[in-house]
Amino acid sequence: MSDNRQIIVRELPSAELSTDHFELRTADRPVPGEGQVAGRTILMSIDAANRAWMAGTTYRDAVQVGDVMPTFAVLEVVESRDSSLKPGDLVAAESVWADYATVPAQRALRVSGTRPLTHELSVCGIAGKTAWHGLVGVGRPQAGETVVVSAAAGSVGMYVGQIARALGCRAVGIAGGPEKCDWVRNELRFDACVDYRDEAWARNLADACPDGIDIYFDNVGGSILETVLFQMNLRGRVVCCGAISQYNTDSPAGPRNVPGLIVVKRLRMEGFIVMDFRHDDRKAVEQLSEWVQNGTVRVFDDVVDGLENAPQALVGLLAGDNRGKRLVRVAPDPPGVPSA
Amino acid sequence: MSDNRQIIVRELPSAELSTDHFELRTADRPVPGEGQVAGRTILMSIDAANRAWMAGTTYRDAVQVGDVMPTFAVLEVVESRDSSLKPGDLVAAESVWADYATVPAQRALRVSGTRPLTHELSVCGIAGKTAWHGLVGVGRPQAGETVVVSAAAGSVGMYVGQIARALGCRAVGIAGGPEKCDWVRNELRFDACVDYRDEAWARNLADACPDGIDIYFDNVGGSILETVLFQMNLRGRVVCCGAISQYNTDSPAGPRNVPGLIVVKRLRMEGFIVMDFRHDDRKAVEQLSEWVQNGTVRVFDDVVDGLENAPQALVGLLAGDNRGKRLVRVAPDPPGVPSA
Repeated sequence: MSDNRQIIVRELPSAELSTDHFELRTADRPVPGEGQVAGRTILMSIDAANRAWMAGTTYRDAVQVGDVMPTFAVLEVVESRDSSLKPGDLVAAESVWADYATVPAQRALRVSGTRPLTHELSVCGIAGKTAWHGLVGVGRPQAGETVVVSAAAGSVGMYVGQIARALGCRAVGIAGGPEKCDWVRNELRFDACVDYRDEAWARNLADACPDGIDIYFDNVGGSILETVLFQMNLRGRVVCCGAISQYNTDSPAGPRNVPGLIVVKRLRMEGFIVMDFRHDDRKAVEQLSEWVQNGTVRVFDDVVDGLENAPQALVGLLAGDNRGKRLVRVAPDPPGVPSA
Repeated sequence: MSDNRQIIVRELPSAELSTDHFELRTADRPVPGEGQVAGRTILMSIDAANRAWMAGTTYRDAVQVGDVMPTFAVLEVVESRDSSLKPGDLVAAESVWADYATVPAQRALRVSGTRPLTHELSVCGIAGKTAWHGLVGVGRPQAGETVVVSAAAGSVGMYVGQIARALGCRAVGIAGGPEKCDWVRNELRFDACVDYRDEAWARNLADACPDGIDIYFDNVGGSILETVLFQMNLRGRVVCCGAISQYNTDSPAGPRNVPGLIVVKRLRMEGFIVMDFRHDDRKAVEQLSEWVQNGTVRVFDDVVDGLENAPQALVGLLAGDNRGKRLVRVAPDPPGVPSA
């Protein structure tokens, strides 16, 4: 049946990404090979990292012109050529922007269906795990320390601050625009949130961090990183998670106080990606689930409807129009799965 | 007696330092207060960090106009108002560019006089300890790894590479000019040394590091740091010791691939200063002394004669004209001390 919509990469962006870089086409439903399953896409994760994949080799091969755009997704198995999975099973896996896709069964993670499926791609998915592993595993916070996180209203940042508070730290966000900042303070319950679009934001950050900054969870790089570095305490830690300010440009700029301030303040800047901490995934998800159930951590998902809207969902995310984890819903949940 | 020559800071440099920023004057010999000793200066340590002290507050207060220029020095006690020290004792202490100075006895480190006094300010002084603590304590090398160090012919770099080799690593230097590079290879016995003034230096560095770079001991920052970062292995470590390329300028530039590459390669960049590892100083000095005695580590000191030549010695150091640890000899060794 040629009812399988796919979104392919028509052209690679040299600077700012636009929806013109993508094209919708229709293809046959894919047929699984030995050891593969074919799945119907239910939800797709939209991430700033998708843009980095289009810029060159990262922790994965670069996206090429003509590729169906890759993504992380929740799928319902419709056909299986592996004994470990059967039609009707729900899985999370690396997939593509399409109604139907095949994935190797060995790289598909079974999803229980006892949690809302959106949570599998947000608080209990890569976003929540990234926040937990980066803050706990790399930043190593002590109760009473001050944790600052940029892109605080984003999929990872929103959990970094909530986890920091759960661990007894002061949580201060950085976000764009007064409404987002209000949302971070009021809904995510951070201690403070600073609007980086405000001219006086560096002073506002200092006011929000009266004891200085012990941990900076950096999602953006660039001039925000530079400003925060000046306010770090001796032996502070910078958790390098991403550089969203640098993905969508052809002229990246480094913080001018590196490495000078790193020496003077004896800072540790350390990068990680979520897969480095796979051995601790179960611990992270158990802790996060418990916090969600007892109300310590709140979940807000930003769901865009329709496969055809995925390009705009990504372009908008890079411009910061999301609030919480951005997802694209491609098909309704199967019956029996709890809704969010 | 007004036979005490001092060199004072006449003007603070806004960009490049010159000898015109200093002035020689003559003053009375200083009289020690309670708990102090007066000493005759024998040797002074000339360091790139001296320039950073003139640019603002670092790990010490900024140098001000009118100050006698601070330095680390070896002195012979000539008068004591503290029971722990007596005339004739040799000490290493924070002092000033002068024939005579007073220092608090509690902050003067007794020097045995069984080693050449130059070694107290080089291999067994701050330079050697900085190399040892930075490489061993921050970089944590494993035998078989590749260690790259910039300013490889400088006071710290020359020991970093020699210690790396003593620990079973491949040692690759970065230095300016073919003669310096030859010296690093032939006299310091690094495995390789690359001339950063050569247009093809990035490719030459890659050729010198066939297994990539595991540890980069960074003394310079700037564009050299940027180039090296591209060649780091996954989970590499950048030991941030200094940023000599950034001290002597009014427009510092940060590496454009920070924090992007830190994330992708999961690098750890960590700053330190030698005082952070004081608890391990004895271990460092014992190990270095043993290596010097058995010929594993070679010592080359670059001694400039005459207090009056200290300004030029510092200006020249910042331009890279030294080979090994730069010192200024102010007075001859007392009798009985072994010569280098």
